[in-house]
Amino acid sequence: MASFWNNRISISIFGESHGPAIGVTIDNLPPGEFIDIEKLHQFMERRAPKSDGTTTPRKEKDMNQIMSGLMNDRTTGTPLCAFIQNTDTRSKDYSNLMKLPRPGHADYTGALRYKGFNDVRGGGHFSGRLTAPLCFAGAVCGQILERRGIYVGAHVAEIHGIKDEEFDHVNVTKDDILAVRYKNFPVIKNAQGKKMQEDILAAREGGESLGGIIECVAVNVPAGIGSPMFDGLENTISQLIFGIPAVKGLEFGAGFEVAKMVGSQNNDSFYVDDRGHVRTVSNNHGGILGGISSGMPITMKVAIKPTASIGQPQQTVNMSSMTNDTLVIQGRHDPCIVARAVPCVEAAVNIALLSHMLDYPHFVE
Amino acid sequence: MASFWNNRISISIFGESHGPAIGVTIDNLPPGEFIDIEKLHQFMERRAPKSDGTTTPRKEKDMNQIMSGLMNDRTTGTPLCAFIQNTDTRSKDYSNLMKLPRPGHADYTGALRYKGFNDVRGGGHFSGRLTAPLCFAGAVCGQILERRGIYVGAHVAEIHGIKDEEFDHVNVTKDDILAVRYKNFPVIKNAQGKKMQEDILAAREGGESLGGIIECVAVNVPAGIGSPMFDGLENTISQLIFGIPAVKGLEFGAGFEVAKMVGSQNNDSFYVDDRGHVRTVSNNHGGILGGISSGMPITMKVAIKPTASIGQPQQTVNMSSMTNDTLVIQGRHDPCIVARAVPCVEAAVNIALLSHMLDYPHFVE
Amino acid sequence: MASFWNNRISISIFGESHGPAIGVTIDNLPPGEFIDIEKLHQFMERRAPKSDGTTTPRKEKDMNQIMSGLMNDRTTGTPLCAFIQNTDTRSKDYSNLMKLPRPGHADYTGALRYKGFNDVRGGGHFSGRLTAPLCFAGAVCGQILERRGIYVGAHVAEIHGIKDEEFDHVNVTKDDILAVRYKNFPVIKNAQGKKMQEDILAAREGGESLGGIIECVAVNVPAGIGSPMFDGLENTISQLIFGIPAVKGLEFGAGFEVAKMVGSQNNDSFYVDDRGHVRTVSNNHGGILGGISSGMPITMKVAIKPTASIGQPQQTVNMSSMTNDTLVIQGRHDPCIVARAVPCVEAAVNIALLSHMLDYPHFVE
Amino acid sequence: MASFWNNRISISIFGESHGPAIGVTIDNLPPGEFIDIEKLHQFMERRAPKSDGTTTPRKEKDMNQIMSGLMNDRTTGTPLCAFIQNTDTRSKDYSNLMKLPRPGHADYTGALRYKGFNDVRGGGHFSGRLTAPLCFAGAVCGQILERRGIYVGAHVAEIHGIKDEEFDHVNVTKDDILAVRYKNFPVIKNAQGKKMQEDILAAREGGESLGGIIECVAVNVPAGIGSPMFDGLENTISQLIFGIPAVKGLEFGAGFEVAKMVGSQNNDSFYVDDRGHVRTVSNNHGGILGGISSGMPITMKVAIKPTASIGQPQQTVNMSSMTNDTLVIQGRHDPCIVARAVPCVEAAVNIALLSHMLDYPHFVE
Repeated sequence: MASFWNNRISISIFGESHGPAIGVTIDNLPPGEFIDIEKLHQFMERRAPKSDGTTTPRKEKDMNQIMSGLMNDRTTGTPLCAFIQNTDTRSKDYSNLMKLPRPGHADYTGALRYKGFNDVRGGGHFSGRLTAPLCFAGAVCGQILERRGIYVGAHVAEIHGIKDEEFDHVNVTKDDILAVRYKNFPVIKNAQGKKMQEDILAAREGGESLGGIIECVAVNVPAGIGSPMFDGLENTISQLIFGIPAVKGLEFGAGFEVAKMVGSQNNDSFYVDDRGHVRTVSNNHGGILGGISSGMPITMKVAIKPTASIGQPQQTVNMSSMTNDTLVIQGRHDPCIVARAVPCVEAAVNIALLSHMLDYPHFVE
Repeated sequence: MASFWNNRISISIFGESHGPAIGVTIDNLPPGEFIDIEKLHQFMERRAPKSDGTTTPRKEKDMNQIMSGLMNDRTTGTPLCAFIQNTDTRSKDYSNLMKLPRPGHADYTGALRYKGFNDVRGGGHFSGRLTAPLCFAGAVCGQILERRGIYVGAHVAEIHGIKDEEFDHVNVTKDDILAVRYKNFPVIKNAQGKKMQEDILAAREGGESLGGIIECVAVNVPAGIGSPMFDGLENTISQLIFGIPAVKGLEFGAGFEVAKMVGSQNNDSFYVDDRGHVRTVSNNHGGILGGISSGMPITMKVAIKPTASIGQPQQTVNMSSMTNDTLVIQGRHDPCIVARAVPCVEAAVNIALLSHMLDYPHFVE
Repeated sequence: MASFWNNRISISIFGESHGPAIGVTIDNLPPGEFIDIEKLHQFMERRAPKSDGTTTPRKEKDMNQIMSGLMNDRTTGTPLCAFIQNTDTRSKDYSNLMKLPRPGHADYTGALRYKGFNDVRGGGHFSGRLTAPLCFAGAVCGQILERRGIYVGAHVAEIHGIKDEEFDHVNVTKDDILAVRYKNFPVIKNAQGKKMQEDILAAREGGESLGGIIECVAVNVPAGIGSPMFDGLENTISQLIFGIPAVKGLEFGAGFEVAKMVGSQNNDSFYVDDRGHVRTVSNNHGGILGGISSGMPITMKVAIKPTASIGQPQQTVNMSSMTNDTLVIQGRHDPCIVARAVPCVEAAVNIALLSHMLDYPHFVE
Repeated sequence: MASFWNNRISISIFGESHGPAIGVTIDNLPPGEFIDIEKLHQFMERRAPKSDGTTTPRKEKDMNQIMSGLMNDRTTGTPLCAFIQNTDTRSKDYSNLMKLPRPGHADYTGALRYKGFNDVRGGGHFSGRLTAPLCFAGAVCGQILERRGIYVGAHVAEIHGIKDEEFDHVNVTKDDILAVRYKNFPVIKNAQGKKMQEDILAAREGGESLGGIIECVAVNVPAGIGSPMFDGLENTISQLIFGIPAVKGLEFGAGFEVAKMVGSQNNDSFYVDDRGHVRTVSNNHGGILGGISSGMPITMKVAIKPTASIGQPQQTVNMSSMTNDTLVIQGRHDPCIVARAVPCVEAAVNIALLSHMLDYPHFVE
């Protein structure tokens, strides 16, 4: 079940970076849902490489071909499968990877796991390119959620120590999400984004790469969705989020800050607002209590490591001679994937939320 | 599947804090494994409340009765079910919880999710007490792992800003793990542990509670275990870890620190050691690359929020009158559950690792 | 996942015939469902041995103790776990089973599968006794279904060539089901039942056992429930039905008779009845088309082999000496388990149907 | 999870009969397995329509394009996805299906299940054409099994009352299987096959269709494979077999005949053969005891109903006017699909067996 994920929604992702195609099959989507193909492409476009130097110059059109499950732009309810052709691949760039595993990559571990038979070209099935079908699935789920008023939005919260403003964890709205969504560089404060971009370009010049943090929120999730133990919102979201390569951490609400807090600070007092709704004054719980939504915004942060492929020479092991060796990675690489990972994080959260929502009658009707 | 977890190993946890019993069923354990019942109780004992004031005075004997799956102290291979009787319960302490949901608890979200029918006494199925069967399952899995040389160990890394030393992420050994395991307060540096305990007692005096961080490592996990995408080691571990109430964050290796790093810092160079083994110089990847073990120690940190039940009056909503109200929690509560959560984190990691290891022939033979 | 079954409803069954207890955990039951304990015991009682000589004289009280998931006789929505103590066990009767595997039993295959570590006393986890927790789970699910008008009923359709009348596959009603349910020997025509019982007693005298066929129907299942491919009603029901030891065949609607039919015979014409409902004139499809309910009664037949334990000497292999040997089975055994398997078949169908029904909003509300 | 199947092997099938493509993704295949593409096509060819009048004249090339998971004809271990383009489709033939549901088809139940949004052209996702990707997956699994000596073979055992000889349930070998496999009409006795074919042609002339029975065996399955309860060989096989449209019954070993037998007849005595292997004298148990293989041939029979689409006028309901109406089906249809279902049954058994075999170390190594 490595690349299958089964909850109420099921997802199966296939493909290798330099194979004929990559893609995804989504099962158990509610039937009759209108899917706006244009918006779907816009979502995918946010993950695509940019031409401004902050990402790899590889042209990924990520144009998907839908093979099943959609008729007249509406879901049929049977499996929806989408394909993305791999076109712009230069496999020779990767020819020595099997011999010299790249530090920070899955070349070494993948070879052991698959006894040397896995496709290593471009990272194969481990490639960040496999987040494209994840985004596709998340974009489909997101449209179904948004039709019911639920919006998921993320932004670059930090790159190499440069911080964006955060969402207002108590009062963030759909509009705050949409204000960031289609920015070329998805930050709340453009000035901070500009600093980050400059830092990325500088890193690129130096053959370096940068890591960062993505903040993601979900608004208007009704209270009472989820379950305790192993099928709560955090369990489901985390299982998907750690499917995005380069993710090294995930926290909800106050996250690791709770270690410095006392109970009276951390507890979020309940109150009745003027519309008669139960809310909390603060939102350290990140909208989830006992695995179940509280009705407050769901908030999380995701740590993304610096791209492992860098321009500098690196120490590694020559697997043929089993001696220490030096690797110089050729090929085109992202100096920073944090911005491109923003829609991937949203996609994972969309899938998790739709999957849980399907348990609730009023939602699907 | 809320309280069922299905991987190669399957776990089903049942029970409510103040019901007749709680317990766990474990399926697909390899047959013929000797289970040392005494060691199993020692593991459970680490989760039990202490008499030193740092935990709830509720006496939980956590003595378990094994109903099936074990004969002559060996696993039969068929489902192993263990029961823990609930004895020392004082339900009247919780009588007003349904009316006044406790901030930071699942009283409010649970009532919505289960339409008011869930057992709220002592937190019901949401109670931290349900980590006892999790520990039981983890202790069983741990013995099977340790027989093959794999050890999982955790310690209190931080409470309320007071930090313990960390494990050596590159060179940590089984002995380092065992040196901490049976300490009354599981820290590496006893002096730091003493400070933490004093801080906890002070918090208790003030009707407060404290959060913290647990560091966990797994050593001697062979390289090549796990899978990409949704069934990698991180996905599996995270799905289980977020099943422990009070967990708000999880990071592997350098975790959120990666946001401040450049690629050449974060990448862990490979080299061949003098025994001909491939290792990495540093361990920012936390022993996992592409969801698959690298052979280096697996390292992670888990954020535990301050116990939600505190002695101070708190603002909440009276669900009968739908007006704002003040809650004063009676009953016995832990001023800090971080130390008691240490074996729970180990248990989750044990279960995840054994589940993945079962895919590998040489392991089970 | 051997003894775990996961669909929308999850079931985990544990226990060995002569261990301390057997039981079941059921997850994802809708909360707030009233469970009539008396009716539950009546259901279990139908599976219990009878004192009329047609079954084993072993006294199985099958009195279950509910450990969680039920409060004030209503489901809490969290896992419902029930225990059945094993009391009347005589283990010495089975002492030579490990050496001389019984023909028709799982002694031989179980020993290989579990490397000789499984509990063989009374068949261990393979014992027909493990259908008691299955019945418990089915009885709980059945009460939830019946509250919505859906009834599942079965009867002994044939034993050793003696046939009962069949249900009217087109017009069978809840009343037809209830007319059979609590009979001491569940047949439609009592005269035929009497013949069967006499045949069973004769078989018992001769140290023999008898097989038979159970017919099961489900009425008032709304049209449109189920799915194509691997999660249709037939797939789900069959996966559970083959969990009952001794089942050797399962057919829906016209079943194996279709091999002798032409299309115009087998196809069930649709028509609109006077209440404006779509129905079919005949019911060869057994209420399921494409894995989805048609609104017609769901009909199936289940083949039950003669009890493997018989009084006559049998040829087998002495596993110690690896020579041919003769086995004489001591102990108490059922000359025919068909009647006792009737509630087990109903239980499996109840579980499958409730699991599918939970996908439909109007059902759970 | 309708069209996803998850065991150790995971299968996801997608597509609609008249959509752009149908296909399958297979996960968790062992890496490094050589797949003979030519043999794979031969397997698929057995399911393809014949030009002899016994099947639909629709040309299904069933030529598949492998998108991932295979490199240099060896499995990579990551998901293997194959596509089959839909080319020869004539959608106008099916234009009135939504209005007039065909008796015996899923038109009516599918419309309810998917609220009228499913693709009804050619049966959409319910089409028998979706067994092509199932065959593909089964062919891949079969090659891996055969490399270890395990062979699965089926034949037409009966059509419209005309019976083929059966396999020798005790002594059937790989050679018996191969002797039937590539026959144009897969029967053991060609003379009987000729009679069946003549009967099929006659049925076609009369606008009729015919049903039948398929017998399937698996030889050289090692003893000790499988599990009790819900994950035994019968449970797994049945869940897959009932995914083949038109299957109405499944029996193992003596199947429904057990109803007429006494225990001493039905029990299969164990003995040691001259090579020191434990075998049974007869094989009424069909090679499976307690869900686990006994080492004897696994034997089963599958009932296939007459093709629902027939040339004769049929009564149905006009769903627009909700009045009774008459349907005359145009288009090309199979007078008998039994022979084409033979490789589908093999495919299902191949998938089930490989999935179980992966639990056993010596098998994958």
